[in-house]
Amino acid sequence: MLTMPTANTQWSLQEKTIAKEAFELSYRREIAAVMAEAKRQATLAADPADLWKLNDFLSARRHYLDGKYDFSPESLVFTFAQLIKEGWLELQELDGLAADKLSKIRILTLM
Amino acid sequence: MLTMPTANTQWSLQEKTIAKEAFELSYRREIAAVMAEAKRQATLAADPADLWKLNDFLSARRHYLDGKYDFSPESLVFTFAQLIKEGWLELQELDGLAADKLSKIRILTLM
Repeated sequence: MLTMPTANTQWSLQEKTIAKEAFELSYRREIAAVMAEAKRQATLAADPADLWKLNDFLSARRHYLDGKYDFSPESLVFTFAQLIKEGWLELQELDGLAADKLSKIRILTLM
Repeated sequence: MLTMPTANTQWSLQEKTIAKEAFELSYRREIAAVMAEAKRQATLAADPADLWKLNDFLSARRHYLDGKYDFSPESLVFTFAQLIKEGWLELQELDGLAADKLSKIRILTLM
């Protein structure tokens, strides 16, 4: 995950609203996938090793999501690029952000 | 959990076999209960908090079971007493152990 800060990035109130909605949409999609996988693993679990594997899966996802879904303006461009690369969000769901931000995000998704 | 060692406790080969079987029987029962509870929680999970609660439940049980199911002769009398108190094992499932061990276990279950 890229964490290099982009200081001097200003977000208007309207952009923040768009960003917040896209952020929450992405989180809901990703957590739904984690939920489905956890339910699948729990349903199939037959011995202790399966339970501890589910435990490890949940611990890892929880840690990863906690770190990734950080709504701070200085890292938001990088976070959106990552969410798009991972398939949780589409670039057009960020329509309404300033062109320079969309351009940065698009370039970052190609890296 | 009691951890005071009982040094000088000798276990015959026959007693070790009985103890091992009772130990594994208790573990199977307890892990089956953890399994059932994990499946129940996973089935009912509806939002992220439910997933992290399942994660915490599994982490805590795993840690607790790892510590409790320690098959070392010096702590076995205490472990059996605890398993009986928790309802995972019955005293008569230890039939065949020397009378002094059964007596110690019985007294410990009353503490």
